[in-house]
Amino acid sequence: MDHRLAALSAGLDELGCEALLVFARSSQDSDLAAFLGGAPVHLGECLLVVPRGGPARLAYLTPMERGEATATGLALLTPEDLDVSRWSSEFPEPSTFLARVAGRALDRSGLVPGRVALAGHGQAGVIQGACSILAAVGWSWVPGNALALEIRKRKRETELEGIREAAAGVAEAMRAVARLLAAAEPEGERRELWLGGERLTVARLRGEVGRVLAGRGLEQPKGNIIAPAEEGAVPHSAGTPERTLRAGESLVVDLFPRGALFADCTRTFCVGEAPEALRSAHAAVLAALDDVRLRAAPGVRGWDLQETVCDRFGAAGYPTPISEPGATRGYVHNLGHGVGFDLHELPTFRKASGAEGVLRAGDVFTLEPGLYDPAAGWGVRLEDLVHLGSEGGLEDLTSLPYDLDPRAWG
Amino acid sequence: MDHRLAALSAGLDELGCEALLVFARSSQDSDLAAFLGGAPVHLGECLLVVPRGGPARLAYLTPMERGEATATGLALLTPEDLDVSRWSSEFPEPSTFLARVAGRALDRSGLVPGRVALAGHGQAGVIQGACSILAAVGWSWVPGNALALEIRKRKRETELEGIREAAAGVAEAMRAVARLLAAAEPEGERRELWLGGERLTVARLRGEVGRVLAGRGLEQPKGNIIAPAEEGAVPHSAGTPERTLRAGESLVVDLFPRGALFADCTRTFCVGEAPEALRSAHAAVLAALDDVRLRAAPGVRGWDLQETVCDRFGAAGYPTPISEPGATRGYVHNLGHGVGFDLHELPTFRKASGAEGVLRAGDVFTLEPGLYDPAAGWGVRLEDLVHLGSEGGLEDLTSLPYDLDPRAWG
Repeated sequence: MDHRLAALSAGLDELGCEALLVFARSSQDSDLAAFLGGAPVHLGECLLVVPRGGPARLAYLTPMERGEATATGLALLTPEDLDVSRWSSEFPEPSTFLARVAGRALDRSGLVPGRVALAGHGQAGVIQGACSILAAVGWSWVPGNALALEIRKRKRETELEGIREAAAGVAEAMRAVARLLAAAEPEGERRELWLGGERLTVARLRGEVGRVLAGRGLEQPKGNIIAPAEEGAVPHSAGTPERTLRAGESLVVDLFPRGALFADCTRTFCVGEAPEALRSAHAAVLAALDDVRLRAAPGVRGWDLQETVCDRFGAAGYPTPISEPGATRGYVHNLGHGVGFDLHELPTFRKASGAEGVLRAGDVFTLEPGLYDPAAGWGVRLEDLVHLGSEGGLEDLTSLPYDLDPRAWG
Repeated sequence: MDHRLAALSAGLDELGCEALLVFARSSQDSDLAAFLGGAPVHLGECLLVVPRGGPARLAYLTPMERGEATATGLALLTPEDLDVSRWSSEFPEPSTFLARVAGRALDRSGLVPGRVALAGHGQAGVIQGACSILAAVGWSWVPGNALALEIRKRKRETELEGIREAAAGVAEAMRAVARLLAAAEPEGERRELWLGGERLTVARLRGEVGRVLAGRGLEQPKGNIIAPAEEGAVPHSAGTPERTLRAGESLVVDLFPRGALFADCTRTFCVGEAPEALRSAHAAVLAALDDVRLRAAPGVRGWDLQETVCDRFGAAGYPTPISEPGATRGYVHNLGHGVGFDLHELPTFRKASGAEGVLRAGDVFTLEPGLYDPAAGWGVRLEDLVHLGSEGGLEDLTSLPYDLDPRAWG
């Protein structure tokens, strides 16, 4: 049994469950995809059943998807095994249909009614309805999404490849942004950036990012952040498309596309002379990033790194979430998060965490200190995506310059 | 009370429910977004409670999102109203936390334990767990996703604007694809297309589409289809990035990006002389599309239009889903689907359907006949996105040429 199935079995044991059942609206469901080995597969609605001890069985609902399903290499439950066409004509109501299909999938996996951990995602009412129907015939349910997250914390080699591919796209897109910025010229009193006879807007950079990422088959299901000055001063803001960029202001570029898996990286630019406050914040953020990169190692807690960064920023006079909870100036967020089938997964860097907050070999996560000043209208964030190797060393998945000045990017 | 709340109240009455509860992982949740008026809002995890008779109350969980939540114009339940910070420290386990927050949201909406319709989307185990906890104190649950779909079948003017914006992006991207194809030249025995000293690949077209759409702030959460020859002969295939395009082959381009809402449109190209089978299939598909565009009117069933198309294709000698269920050659899919907050919503064109299968004024849907021949390696699909106006006329949301030859696109 591989590492992941062994971890799942141990987890099911702890929950007192006989199996894991994953509901998925597509094979991109993050709880499901972790069982597909990281290969790009395109299935519509499907289910996965993993009896304690394995193996996993993938249940697909459309005969047309046989080829895709077979490509996963998993044991399959076909639409015929599940009697899909019978249920869909007898029970057109979605939760009743799902109950019949899921019940059959559990049965065909050799299970008898008992405790099952439930993971995956779907329509709230349909899932609740299906689970009620199955509860009436003896199945009982335990939340299993946290277990599904836990077992995919440590990434497999094929998954790392998927993350590296997405990260290579991010690096190319970030360099393309730097090139446009480096080629732009400030004009007029407002020092607006012009390039090729047109104003350089957020929308134009977003178009360039879209070209590079889409050309590599990467999607941006959660969009991106290209946020100048006052917009980049609020970590939440994505950036207004029509906004023309200006010399001397900060520009936060945070890209997080998905291929087979997600990648995530942020750089901050400033065309021309940066104001003193921005320059020193950038230096402080870069020093913090350098520091936590050195400290990130197997056995270290994410929260410990967050505390280190808060100490450092606090000593430099910036408010932090520890010194001033809820502050919007200074360091206002957490240090990082795991990245994989979801943009945010384990390890967590939150204070309230157990094993899921401890960095381990095989983890992939971001390190992203930042400083913000909404009143002054600037923000700086530098975010690296790293893989903690089996020797404990950090593999950098987004090797890029950190310079504010795009002309220094070469 | 507006039309939608009135329809919701009637639906809740029919289900014997006191309220609708919507779980959402973000404000883009399709069941939730329909209550936000079509304005672009960016909230993380949130809930919506609509007591029968209204009004809707939006519950958000992060104090930082106050501004975004206020912008919806809805009555709000703030994190303080919901006691979010208390529950998150007392109940870190996600389903227990969600149960406390949802219970408080129902209570603060003036409801006492009773029957509630459940909609929205989320983590299967967490939702099932939260619902069980609430069931123990007297709440009972009825699937409500279908009701949420039903009430947003007829689009509001602000929503139409969102669809038109996405559709304008699709039209620009499709024209950009046509321009690249028109400028390309076939070379060598394989008649591969070259442009600017490089082979013209699926990836390059995908990059161009990405540039145009991303530049307009449109995302492609479900990717796109740019499928040449043998790949376009299977409606399921997205197209392999490295594949170089060739003269004389079909190229199916199906784009379905999302802004505030989705749009969806397909055209089929052929650079240079098209083979006879492809030309006649294209003519047959275009004639079928023209025909159903004339027949689509309030009161007509989607399935009736599907039958009309099957009759027409059948008479021309092509297999159809009615004459040969499961066939992979000929006409192999359904005629259309509603489009809005989801890429696929109501009206449906399926046979087994009631009111949700009848076209009504205010509906937005696709009409997409196609013909395919996997053995011969070609596919043709032409898909228009239309809005059925209040006078019963069709508004074309994707006005584009239908020509196979990209040079005819001008």
